[in-house]
Amino acid sequence: MNAARPTRRELANAIRVLAMDAVETAKSGHPGMPMGMADIAEVLWNDFLSHNPNNPAWFNRDRFVLSNGHGSMLLYALLHLSGYELPMDELRRFRQLGSRTAGHPEFGHTPGVETTTGPLGQGFANAVGMALAEKLLARRFNRPEFDIIDHYTWVFLGDGCLMEGVSHEAASLAGTWGLGKLICFWDDNRISIDGDTAGWFTDDTAARFEAYGWQVIRKVDGHDPEEIAQAIRTAQAEGERPTLICCRTTIGYGAPNKQGKESTHGAPLGKDEVAAARAHLGWPHAPFEIPQAIYDGWRAGNAGLVREEQWKNRLAEYARLYPEPAAELLRRIRGDLPEGFDDVARAFAARLQQEGPVVASRKASQMALEAYGPHLPELIGGSADLAHSNLTVWKGSKPVTGDDPAANYIHYGVREFGMTAIGNGIALHGGFIPYDATFLVFSDYSRNALRMSALIPTRSIHVFTHDSIGLGEDGPTHQPVEHLASLRYIPNNDVWRPCDAVESAVAWQAALQRREGPTCLVFSRQNLAHQPRMEQQLGDIARGGYVLSDPPEGRFDLIIIATGSEVELAMEAMRRLAGDGIAARVVSMPSAEVFARQPLEWREGVLPSWCRKRVAVEAGVSGYWRQFVGLDGAVVGLDRFGASAPADQLFRHFGITVEAVVAAARSLRA
Amino acid sequence: MNAARPTRRELANAIRVLAMDAVETAKSGHPGMPMGMADIAEVLWNDFLSHNPNNPAWFNRDRFVLSNGHGSMLLYALLHLSGYELPMDELRRFRQLGSRTAGHPEFGHTPGVETTTGPLGQGFANAVGMALAEKLLARRFNRPEFDIIDHYTWVFLGDGCLMEGVSHEAASLAGTWGLGKLICFWDDNRISIDGDTAGWFTDDTAARFEAYGWQVIRKVDGHDPEEIAQAIRTAQAEGERPTLICCRTTIGYGAPNKQGKESTHGAPLGKDEVAAARAHLGWPHAPFEIPQAIYDGWRAGNAGLVREEQWKNRLAEYARLYPEPAAELLRRIRGDLPEGFDDVARAFAARLQQEGPVVASRKASQMALEAYGPHLPELIGGSADLAHSNLTVWKGSKPVTGDDPAANYIHYGVREFGMTAIGNGIALHGGFIPYDATFLVFSDYSRNALRMSALIPTRSIHVFTHDSIGLGEDGPTHQPVEHLASLRYIPNNDVWRPCDAVESAVAWQAALQRREGPTCLVFSRQNLAHQPRMEQQLGDIARGGYVLSDPPEGRFDLIIIATGSEVELAMEAMRRLAGDGIAARVVSMPSAEVFARQPLEWREGVLPSWCRKRVAVEAGVSGYWRQFVGLDGAVVGLDRFGASAPADQLFRHFGITVEAVVAAARSLRA
Repeated sequence: MNAARPTRRELANAIRVLAMDAVETAKSGHPGMPMGMADIAEVLWNDFLSHNPNNPAWFNRDRFVLSNGHGSMLLYALLHLSGYELPMDELRRFRQLGSRTAGHPEFGHTPGVETTTGPLGQGFANAVGMALAEKLLARRFNRPEFDIIDHYTWVFLGDGCLMEGVSHEAASLAGTWGLGKLICFWDDNRISIDGDTAGWFTDDTAARFEAYGWQVIRKVDGHDPEEIAQAIRTAQAEGERPTLICCRTTIGYGAPNKQGKESTHGAPLGKDEVAAARAHLGWPHAPFEIPQAIYDGWRAGNAGLVREEQWKNRLAEYARLYPEPAAELLRRIRGDLPEGFDDVARAFAARLQQEGPVVASRKASQMALEAYGPHLPELIGGSADLAHSNLTVWKGSKPVTGDDPAANYIHYGVREFGMTAIGNGIALHGGFIPYDATFLVFSDYSRNALRMSALIPTRSIHVFTHDSIGLGEDGPTHQPVEHLASLRYIPNNDVWRPCDAVESAVAWQAALQRREGPTCLVFSRQNLAHQPRMEQQLGDIARGGYVLSDPPEGRFDLIIIATGSEVELAMEAMRRLAGDGIAARVVSMPSAEVFARQPLEWREGVLPSWCRKRVAVEAGVSGYWRQFVGLDGAVVGLDRFGASAPADQLFRHFGITVEAVVAAARSLRA
Repeated sequence: MNAARPTRRELANAIRVLAMDAVETAKSGHPGMPMGMADIAEVLWNDFLSHNPNNPAWFNRDRFVLSNGHGSMLLYALLHLSGYELPMDELRRFRQLGSRTAGHPEFGHTPGVETTTGPLGQGFANAVGMALAEKLLARRFNRPEFDIIDHYTWVFLGDGCLMEGVSHEAASLAGTWGLGKLICFWDDNRISIDGDTAGWFTDDTAARFEAYGWQVIRKVDGHDPEEIAQAIRTAQAEGERPTLICCRTTIGYGAPNKQGKESTHGAPLGKDEVAAARAHLGWPHAPFEIPQAIYDGWRAGNAGLVREEQWKNRLAEYARLYPEPAAELLRRIRGDLPEGFDDVARAFAARLQQEGPVVASRKASQMALEAYGPHLPELIGGSADLAHSNLTVWKGSKPVTGDDPAANYIHYGVREFGMTAIGNGIALHGGFIPYDATFLVFSDYSRNALRMSALIPTRSIHVFTHDSIGLGEDGPTHQPVEHLASLRYIPNNDVWRPCDAVESAVAWQAALQRREGPTCLVFSRQNLAHQPRMEQQLGDIARGGYVLSDPPEGRFDLIIIATGSEVELAMEAMRRLAGDGIAARVVSMPSAEVFARQPLEWREGVLPSWCRKRVAVEAGVSGYWRQFVGLDGAVVGLDRFGASAPADQLFRHFGITVEAVVAAARSLRA
């Protein structure tokens, strides 16, 4: 090795060796991909990637997404070598408790990681969202001579990502949207975990992506820096179409006896092969030792500082010339809602409380969009081809496919998984608060993206309408039963199921204001009664669970807990029981998760321990409610699939009625 | 209309009118697709489809799948007109409670419906499974001059199906597998619910399918019977590749003012437009009145009888010449397991109980496959590129991509959703019991296909390994938390999480013997202790929940309930408590759903009401267990995302330990 000036291959070998050594030390991990993609990464990161290792949050940085996230050591090596705050000690503790080098890259856990990846295909879809966000922000904020927003989104992806269905959904939209600054490198190594992909992956991927309207650069030697650089230049020269660069690589490149085999994919190479690879690569250094010359060849810190500094200067000049858009941009980058938004929302809820509209909560959701939307240029959303059922379009909606600088509406087509993962990418990019929408039952289709939304976490809003058998005639394939409980069980996922227009408005407000993670807003197809509230109660809604009605004299014998469309059943049951001298409290519980975060005093005030006579009512699986009513209480729920019929008949047929609630209440032992 | 001999268009118009009238009567439904695809359906059903309306279960019938299931009235009209047991009264009661004409087609609910559709893309994937089943059965059972298994699988699909990611996964595999008898009609009407698809569906679908290795027939006029017939002949002439026939159609064809618009998609046309369509189509008959001449042009009953009779005669001759395969085929068609299988399984479990292997339950699953597999030629399975992690390969596994007549292993690639939906199709076809596999966390990717598996229902076995933080270093993206509870909440879905090799063997037996729906088998990555059992207890496992250990003197103060890897924690906690004079019963609950189906006496025997001191322990969300331990009990669970670290450290870090169980038990009030 020439100590003064390492070759590109030597720079790349630093990745290879770090990856194989870290995996060897952890006795777990995936050396094959980092060793195979090291040369591509070296060219991209050293010659093209615009970033600043000193400030991973620099807004105009290029985004780099490792969609084949199992190759996390590639990314950790890149971050370490380029000068991010990821010292060698962290690499030594790869995959250990409390280290910053988790098995798969985790956003927020490691500086420079743009999204959490591992579940295949989703990193790619996140990147599509990031590239869309860049394009839309540029359209809105850039001015002649001021390309304030101007960066690329780069993606590494593998065969696994391409086999996943979500790659189809995301690639199709990227083509339709003309995301010319999205550049993806396909690690075409023809190996997946089961072995040679010839038996299960025979797509002509290049032709497939051309069918999506992509530029495809075929047959690039992924180990030839000049071919790689040339492909990148071709990709950058294309303004309209996203680019897929097909890189022929050898998995585990550099491990002389194992390269090209699936055995390098997901297990340590073993002591002997690591030694053989060291010899083969001409790398005499001990594990986790990098010569200074190699560091010198990698360190991007200074260039990054200069790059960000130049941008900041441009931004200052831009702010002088265009103070209003600059202020909006900076606010949106910070993620702050406009000043006074809280007042707007509170006034809107108070007005609804007074007017008492009787509407479906999906309609109430649209009313909230109409009320809040004009104040929130950062709000961007759409639906998976159900705009007029989910009621996600409002008067200010402008499709992103047009040229409008205020574009804020996405027709996702019938692509729930892609939609949600793209939304996650939009949120991660920053500058937008995304919402997406489909029928509640089809949350199944995007389930893992919803989970990732909570895990990353992203400030995403997931709108789900048609939330029960109240959907009616479309039948059991379209009627959620287990979905509410299943969504609530995702950690860090807030679920709201409002009972009327007022709760719907508050739920939207809570979702918009929540920075710590996603919110699912669950709305009815059918009209819901308006519930009377005192001013205090109006404020209580934000607690997630509150007393909607107490007997006039205060004392009560039992508690009825309900959500959404079943709150009006609870209220009517309360009235009938009162007629028989049984005093019931009614608790509306639009968000059990938010309620669970309230102080014990609040929870005890709403559901006092002394009262074990409790009935829960919700048109979904009953088991979930046992944590509130215990073994002594009763649940009026639905533990089987629905049926196709008009909604009112279904509620009667499945026994989710006032009579059932009354009977359940009466059945409780004293 | 020529009463004696209707034109093809008149035959097709019968579908159109029935569809628009039924939707009008129901005030709900989707007229656009049936009116648009009526001409295609007429040609296919009258000139090509090999079926017997008198016996929808005839095994060698062509399979017809309506993947765009919202157009259910197309199928109901076809079934009615062709002479299936679906009288006009049922069409009049479209989408009404108790009718056989549900909003979306439901398997088992309406004769002639091959699978339940509506959730887009999955019908197509089901059909890929059916076509694979046909191909493999033909390979195994056909003999020279005896094509006993020889039928086509036909699919109608729309833009929505093609936008969904699952279409990518299924189409790719269909191409790889060379399913030459799979013929799909794409309803290329350029309209989806949101309107003109130009804004969100710009794929070159024909090129995309060619990239999957399909034969694609472009630009067929979907309203020209001769073009349609010619395309079908071309498709049938192709032996190796599946065929996509791209049919240009007009949605709502025949409704003079609304055709070609999204307003025809999912709502009644309205009285005036229905009248205008009647005039436009030259259809003077009242709603739900079909002239006899039209019926005569459609009725396929006699031809069907003859067809099945000829097949039965061939089969009888085949059985004479090849008695053994014939017997096997007939047994597999009936869905009976081989005689004596129960004994095999019982002996295997007894042997394991005696030998007491300490293995991961995923390894125990593989041992069960080795033990049962040789007896079960109908068992076909695979994994989504995790064969050696899920341990789904056994010695008798032979890939379906080869020529082996006993092929029974499917390398699905990284396609969880496609895998599960294809498996559902294999099960629906009959002749096979399919299993599929991935990591438990990636059940998310196939979530709606798992639901459909339970709803249809199919006799499918879903293997999920790496069932908790016990997965270790791969970290939170790969560690299930909410998944066990979420899967258990799907109605009619049995979930087993065995605690050792013995329970794993019994779980496999239960899954194989269950005809009423699917079973999820959930296995650990890490080794599990062997649990001692008396002979009676060995038999108790099949109850889903049973007493694994009682104090010697019989009396107990509290109950510890556990599943899977946590059973050994419960057992050790019981021993420590015993040391302190606290007597605990340990209940192993491998399947809460199976336990819930036991008679009250059994359940009360295991979990007597008098004992409210209960602790549940499972490395997943705690809320689920409240239905067993109530408000007075305690749950040792995990209500947050996991982390990347070695498994044993994670259990300690997250407090899922013997100490935690002991502490929880001590904390219970008397």
